[in-house]
Amino acid sequence: MDYAHRLEGERRVRLDDFDPGETAGLKRREAEKKTAQLIEELIELQELLYAVGLQSVLIVLQGRDTSGKDGTIRHVTGPLNSQSCSVASFKVPTEEELAHDFLWRVHAQTPLAGHIKIFNRSHYEDVLVARVHKLVPEKIWRRRYEHINAFEELQADSPTVILKFYLHISKDEQEQRLLKREQDPVKSWKLSVGDWQERGYWDDYTEAYEDALARCSTKHAPWFIVPADKKWFRNLAVAQTVRDALMPLREGWLNKLEEVGRERKQTIDEYRRSRSHSG
Amino acid sequence: MDYAHRLEGERRVRLDDFDPGETAGLKRREAEKKTAQLIEELIELQELLYAVGLQSVLIVLQGRDTSGKDGTIRHVTGPLNSQSCSVASFKVPTEEELAHDFLWRVHAQTPLAGHIKIFNRSHYEDVLVARVHKLVPEKIWRRRYEHINAFEELQADSPTVILKFYLHISKDEQEQRLLKREQDPVKSWKLSVGDWQERGYWDDYTEAYEDALARCSTKHAPWFIVPADKKWFRNLAVAQTVRDALMPLREGWLNKLEEVGRERKQTIDEYRRSRSHSG
Repeated sequence: MDYAHRLEGERRVRLDDFDPGETAGLKRREAEKKTAQLIEELIELQELLYAVGLQSVLIVLQGRDTSGKDGTIRHVTGPLNSQSCSVASFKVPTEEELAHDFLWRVHAQTPLAGHIKIFNRSHYEDVLVARVHKLVPEKIWRRRYEHINAFEELQADSPTVILKFYLHISKDEQEQRLLKREQDPVKSWKLSVGDWQERGYWDDYTEAYEDALARCSTKHAPWFIVPADKKWFRNLAVAQTVRDALMPLREGWLNKLEEVGRERKQTIDEYRRSRSHSG
Repeated sequence: MDYAHRLEGERRVRLDDFDPGETAGLKRREAEKKTAQLIEELIELQELLYAVGLQSVLIVLQGRDTSGKDGTIRHVTGPLNSQSCSVASFKVPTEEELAHDFLWRVHAQTPLAGHIKIFNRSHYEDVLVARVHKLVPEKIWRRRYEHINAFEELQADSPTVILKFYLHISKDEQEQRLLKREQDPVKSWKLSVGDWQERGYWDDYTEAYEDALARCSTKHAPWFIVPADKKWFRNLAVAQTVRDALMPLREGWLNKLEEVGRERKQTIDEYRRSRSHSG
């Protein structure tokens, strides 16, 4: 069974239809074991992706404050080889970034062939925070869905496997996490009065997310809703989705590598023969 | 009258329908005088564009070898203030550029708000040389027209004024220029056997250009066919087109600057008053 909910071509999305606390009947221990196994498989898949070097993977992580974007990166993609896997975090845009179209800074960060790139927040902020806080007029952000779809289609054609995750937490769970953060001296650097202020816009964000999920769920760049109240279930759901998306490519990659290996061996054999003749 | 031929929404373009030697009945001296006047106006328009800082200008120069891309840059945009006007030249892609989608390196070079950017060759090479020399399969380059249109629409929305010029020379004129280049010791560094080889693909390039001009002529990013056998007429046609595209924006820019100036003056007046009271 699929632990995350794939969206593709939906006309309307209601976040209320998805339970943030879902665990698919799994216990924590069991889920963590499964996750560890999936990550082992991911490590092998990453190696093949890199060796073949023809495709890329782009993982987009979105979610409200405390929904676990950093935690997902640490637990799921952290164990991958950082030579070909890296993270791009999109914060408040700089002046130079604002003096370009909204996809300029995002395009610059797209993965090299053979690499995996994780976007911690992304171009979707430009139809989320920009919409909720009216940073640009509606006329502007309305046109962005179309620009996003065209941009993601360009990436998919590169070719890049695009997987977009909405980490779905409940309002109660967010409150718990914000309160807990206040008590944890190590995590307190993450504290900001802005987090509590943003919480006041909960429903506006819900609406903005529902629109983004519906308008930008395409075959080549699907969204996945990840139940994220339980961190261990969230990790499992993300790991499984990435593994399942790459696994069908594995055989092609292996064949390609074998083919390349055969050619190289032939070249080396010919070289050896030519030396033994001339020598 | 318009010296360059604007294309917008054409379904089919035939280069043979346009005379590369056209001069609109002008003599060289007369044309050069007009061009100088237009450049004066462009210099003022550039200053306003920069001062307001809300829009950008993107000038795309395409054309066969020796068609005068460098000359156009030197004569028409050379006199502009280089603080807010620069050139991006797109040569054979590097390995890093090839490991991304074809628009990656182009997007990185789009103009800052308030600036003018000239593309000396551009993303169109990916449907010209890439097509003629079969650098990628047809299935790939066919999809690129759509990607280009979406990308240019994104720029237009930024907002950026996009003007694309095809410098149209005849096959005879190209031969003259290649031969002349061989005799000129200062220009001989530009010589390449590749130029003569490319000439062998004249008709293939014609077909590729005709397709690109037809498929990517849009309202927000029109193509202009510039008669380019006479360098002085080419310069006039480009200068006029850029000036005519920006002139309608002039009044809005002036109003905007006046408004900003009024606000600043008010702030300064208030500051003066507050000091005279407290003093």
